[in-house]
Amino acid sequence: MLVVMAVAATEDEIQGVRRHIEKDGLTAHESRGSERVVIGVVGDVGLRKEQVMGHLAVLPGVDTVTPISRPFKLTSREFHPEDTVIEVGDGRVGGGGLTVMAGPCSIEDRDQLMRTADGVAASGATILRGGAFKPRTSPYSFQGLGVEGLELLAEARERTGLPIVTEVMEPSQVDVVAAHADILQVGARNMQNYPLLMAVGRAAKPVMLKRGLSATIEEWLMAAEYIVSSGNPDVILCERGIRTFETYTRNTLDIAAVPLLERLTHLPVIVDPSHATGKRWLVRSMALAAVAAGADGIMVEVHPEPDLALSDGEQSLTLEQFAEMAPVLDQIHAEVAGLAGETV
Amino acid sequence: MLVVMAVAATEDEIQGVRRHIEKDGLTAHESRGSERVVIGVVGDVGLRKEQVMGHLAVLPGVDTVTPISRPFKLTSREFHPEDTVIEVGDGRVGGGGLTVMAGPCSIEDRDQLMRTADGVAASGATILRGGAFKPRTSPYSFQGLGVEGLELLAEARERTGLPIVTEVMEPSQVDVVAAHADILQVGARNMQNYPLLMAVGRAAKPVMLKRGLSATIEEWLMAAEYIVSSGNPDVILCERGIRTFETYTRNTLDIAAVPLLERLTHLPVIVDPSHATGKRWLVRSMALAAVAAGADGIMVEVHPEPDLALSDGEQSLTLEQFAEMAPVLDQIHAEVAGLAGETV
Amino acid sequence: MLVVMAVAATEDEIQGVRRHIEKDGLTAHESRGSERVVIGVVGDVGLRKEQVMGHLAVLPGVDTVTPISRPFKLTSREFHPEDTVIEVGDGRVGGGGLTVMAGPCSIEDRDQLMRTADGVAASGATILRGGAFKPRTSPYSFQGLGVEGLELLAEARERTGLPIVTEVMEPSQVDVVAAHADILQVGARNMQNYPLLMAVGRAAKPVMLKRGLSATIEEWLMAAEYIVSSGNPDVILCERGIRTFETYTRNTLDIAAVPLLERLTHLPVIVDPSHATGKRWLVRSMALAAVAAGADGIMVEVHPEPDLALSDGEQSLTLEQFAEMAPVLDQIHAEVAGLAGETV
Amino acid sequence: MLVVMAVAATEDEIQGVRRHIEKDGLTAHESRGSERVVIGVVGDVGLRKEQVMGHLAVLPGVDTVTPISRPFKLTSREFHPEDTVIEVGDGRVGGGGLTVMAGPCSIEDRDQLMRTADGVAASGATILRGGAFKPRTSPYSFQGLGVEGLELLAEARERTGLPIVTEVMEPSQVDVVAAHADILQVGARNMQNYPLLMAVGRAAKPVMLKRGLSATIEEWLMAAEYIVSSGNPDVILCERGIRTFETYTRNTLDIAAVPLLERLTHLPVIVDPSHATGKRWLVRSMALAAVAAGADGIMVEVHPEPDLALSDGEQSLTLEQFAEMAPVLDQIHAEVAGLAGETV
Repeated sequence: MLVVMAVAATEDEIQGVRRHIEKDGLTAHESRGSERVVIGVVGDVGLRKEQVMGHLAVLPGVDTVTPISRPFKLTSREFHPEDTVIEVGDGRVGGGGLTVMAGPCSIEDRDQLMRTADGVAASGATILRGGAFKPRTSPYSFQGLGVEGLELLAEARERTGLPIVTEVMEPSQVDVVAAHADILQVGARNMQNYPLLMAVGRAAKPVMLKRGLSATIEEWLMAAEYIVSSGNPDVILCERGIRTFETYTRNTLDIAAVPLLERLTHLPVIVDPSHATGKRWLVRSMALAAVAAGADGIMVEVHPEPDLALSDGEQSLTLEQFAEMAPVLDQIHAEVAGLAGETV
Repeated sequence: MLVVMAVAATEDEIQGVRRHIEKDGLTAHESRGSERVVIGVVGDVGLRKEQVMGHLAVLPGVDTVTPISRPFKLTSREFHPEDTVIEVGDGRVGGGGLTVMAGPCSIEDRDQLMRTADGVAASGATILRGGAFKPRTSPYSFQGLGVEGLELLAEARERTGLPIVTEVMEPSQVDVVAAHADILQVGARNMQNYPLLMAVGRAAKPVMLKRGLSATIEEWLMAAEYIVSSGNPDVILCERGIRTFETYTRNTLDIAAVPLLERLTHLPVIVDPSHATGKRWLVRSMALAAVAAGADGIMVEVHPEPDLALSDGEQSLTLEQFAEMAPVLDQIHAEVAGLAGETV
Repeated sequence: MLVVMAVAATEDEIQGVRRHIEKDGLTAHESRGSERVVIGVVGDVGLRKEQVMGHLAVLPGVDTVTPISRPFKLTSREFHPEDTVIEVGDGRVGGGGLTVMAGPCSIEDRDQLMRTADGVAASGATILRGGAFKPRTSPYSFQGLGVEGLELLAEARERTGLPIVTEVMEPSQVDVVAAHADILQVGARNMQNYPLLMAVGRAAKPVMLKRGLSATIEEWLMAAEYIVSSGNPDVILCERGIRTFETYTRNTLDIAAVPLLERLTHLPVIVDPSHATGKRWLVRSMALAAVAAGADGIMVEVHPEPDLALSDGEQSLTLEQFAEMAPVLDQIHAEVAGLAGETV
Repeated sequence: MLVVMAVAATEDEIQGVRRHIEKDGLTAHESRGSERVVIGVVGDVGLRKEQVMGHLAVLPGVDTVTPISRPFKLTSREFHPEDTVIEVGDGRVGGGGLTVMAGPCSIEDRDQLMRTADGVAASGATILRGGAFKPRTSPYSFQGLGVEGLELLAEARERTGLPIVTEVMEPSQVDVVAAHADILQVGARNMQNYPLLMAVGRAAKPVMLKRGLSATIEEWLMAAEYIVSSGNPDVILCERGIRTFETYTRNTLDIAAVPLLERLTHLPVIVDPSHATGKRWLVRSMALAAVAAGADGIMVEVHPEPDLALSDGEQSLTLEQFAEMAPVLDQIHAEVAGLAGETV
């Protein structure tokens, strides 16, 4: 880290900062510019980093303290250059293929799920999504079928061969969800629910971690770091839009996160255009854009009769719309997969 | 709710919307303007509201569907005009007095907590705060003393007479925290952790609910609605800054939330300038501003030696700074308490 | 517009609102729901709209006043269903083709501009961009070559046949810029500079209007409305990223604006990934994503030696990188151009 | 500035960066940490700063380039420690007193302005505000009385003795506005209208610069730097709310900007709660909060009959409400003016 001194810092204040650094067992490395002095802190700060920074920041004469290293390690491409490729069922997430997760927002009943599962399986989905435990903004909305929903998902997998991704909302649900699902999803609202991150970090199934509505990319990777540092290296990141001042769309899909994450981390990245936009007629364009930007896959909501859905009908594709979109995704993916090396 | 038809909507589409509304057992109430038709939906929608809106939104010829009623009920001043006043220890939160919560970010050891508790009790704090379970962005940071911290808090209460507020991070911790603390705090990152909201909603202690970093005021009240509808009417709201593009401060303290909430809800409102700003030298100004705006109280971090704090030292006041600030808060509170009726 | 009454509104207050509406020569259309009364305002409000809304909002018993119609008219697809296609030189912007604007951020000297112009012309650019008048955050940064830059642009057009787009910063510059350029660009910081909007609205050249850094789509269309209502129907919209809390990229490119604008307006839409991301290695991915989402074109910065650029070198493509990207844009455009009807 | 090398940077890349720095006539100052190398750039970069940073950022092996100095100089407290106090009429802005600017949003006619001027003068306003040239989001809204409005303002000054502040929207208006007004206001939408900033920078009257809706504090100070570096040292900053995702208020008033600016700059700071909130019943609370936070003054909209106002009636105080608020502002100001030294 670097301690930037105020322009008016006195020699005594500069020496005070140096002594503070050395008392902590670290080395001060001074650089005198034309206006101010900058003091580099060299040495193994490790776990004490945040604390050391906080203390230095309030010493007399200090203007700001700036970290140099990024705070994520296990999820960082700098420390783990090779792509993480995750085995799910007979397929893989990451590693050059295109993952297409599709299915209903909420599982409503057996018929609705099986019709959707059959439909998306026939049209090229590679993973089936469906909500059994549902986080809802209002306590008065439909909260999901719970364990019954998990059992229906397992039946749909049996029938179609598609692996299952579904959300887990609290640590005590991890075991039952892991017993039924192939991928455990952590929702946007739980991105910084640390007990939950640690619980899925101890599970034996891959985890898909959605970006929080106002999470920076660095915080998102720190949340992934919680999971990986708890023992589970199989983390998939899912961009689903961030909150901005724009109100025509529910959220603003941050597609630039895709190539940015490709540089910062080795983990695969999926994009969810359904939740980001909240509008069915925006889903296809945004799915195509995500694939063109190099995403490892997309996740979309599909419902056999969106007008009757118990949740998020407004943003669900029909089976026909999904069937029409899927081959275009593959064509775009084929175009950009051929591009050599880094994205320019 | 209101269904706004597109300018180009045909008579058939308008009739289609009417039929859909009536099939749902509701009444359509049509209003023809110079450019378009608006159809009011009258009747008891209740729990189906979100679903009904979603279905109408995708019918042919529909431009937008707008809700009329606010989604929060139990927490709404429209349905509960009298202020909620919450008994805590021998004192009260809300009801005209000024609540001053003070204490360390994290409880680090017995000595640090007792020195802080004694100090803030002597200078006018009315409630002692202190973190035993700590949500930390990095898995490598200090995570709190846990149950040992709760026991130290209980000892500090014994010693000073101050009631205790401390954070609970997951449903399985609610019992043990409720056994030691007087107020259960739900942190900003957990504002939409629904299992946790329902768990504290079943507890027999008041709950202080912090605003999520990117939560709208409506979402925040919906989160409070989860707690109240689970059986616990004693909810305190705590504004702690929202995320914006500005980077000089950690977050942007939304002080206008104070008079706005006074109009929208009957629940008391506390402001936390320490977390909002992240900088010690901004805390006093923002605490004074919050009280001038009519807040029911403030919560600030205080540490006997901030330069040695294990967390958030940069934003903690010293005991001397707290002692100097407390009487000014009271003076400002006295000035504004005399103002008749609504804030202009 | 609709006047939503408070739950506790009295009959007198409801009648007061009705009388106020009728006194204004409008008709009140009342709808009584289970909780509250909603009063529709029918009649020709026209220019008085904002004012009428403001007055109703403060009457006793009124909760909120909601507009129904969108405020933009001339730029609205509802009132002008056919796509606007703009003739520029021998080519067109909009109408199904792909526009590729490329060139340096700032024109630095004759050699730099001609090398860039020759290079991008040879690789498939359809319009040459280049800044002569430069809006710079710092008064101490390079401010552009001014009229000399415009003359160099005209020479480059002569040489390559490519039409020219360049920025105009104030009303008094409009004539000289219009005398040299084929498209007048209004920059993001000037999106709500109304005297400038009216001045380019009186010019005889097409205008490219960049979205303001924190502009909603509605405000952006209102700014376009200023230009069109001043007499100039040839407006091109340019999405260039909005300001959010994310700091890894300079701005967040809002690609969903592309299909959204396709529905709301008949004007063509260009995307600028260079300014949005601020990082050269993100430009190609975002350009491909924009085209996949259905944009009418892109605008990118290209410099023969970005490491020596006087401005924005960090985000400029080399001539080789541009040449490599251009055919992929065409391929993606060909894939999505074949999609029937609305974007799902 | 500091060049942070990638963890995997090779020795050759490090030497390449050093050579690049030295070729530019600057000195490289290397610091080797446990993970990476950081290279400080020492020397007089001056005007080339942005350009030098851009070039270094794209060299092989470079991770990021971080500026150390703040980009504003003339407006910086580091380089100009004493408060700027601005003489306006017989009074002063800054320097310990409380400035109260009040008046109508738009000047509508002689009677409305004189009634307002007389009223606010009698109740303690120190400066009269009023809009003659109005920037309006819609081209169809009332655009102000123009020069006739300026003449009415001058008459109101004659009558009441209050100095006048009014907005100037384009460079060609500066002379006529400066001939009538005592303070030239640059509106939020024009904060980065550089030709306008330079034009008011050459005027002989003080300038009040409103913060842009999405401007960082640093950008705001850079805009002030444009004015001061053009020759006009008398700049007043006006916080008027920033754009966030919250929709209950028009904007989010960033009151923490007040103590933050006190530390960063020597210029006086005024807060405008009327535009920030957009709601009359929030104005008093926010004005009190601003004064409690240490603002040098406030600016509020006042109208004798807000229900009939041609613009912004919803947020205007009545004369009675203003008269009731003014003495409380003075009391709060007196409480906080006594606080010694820095705001904690």
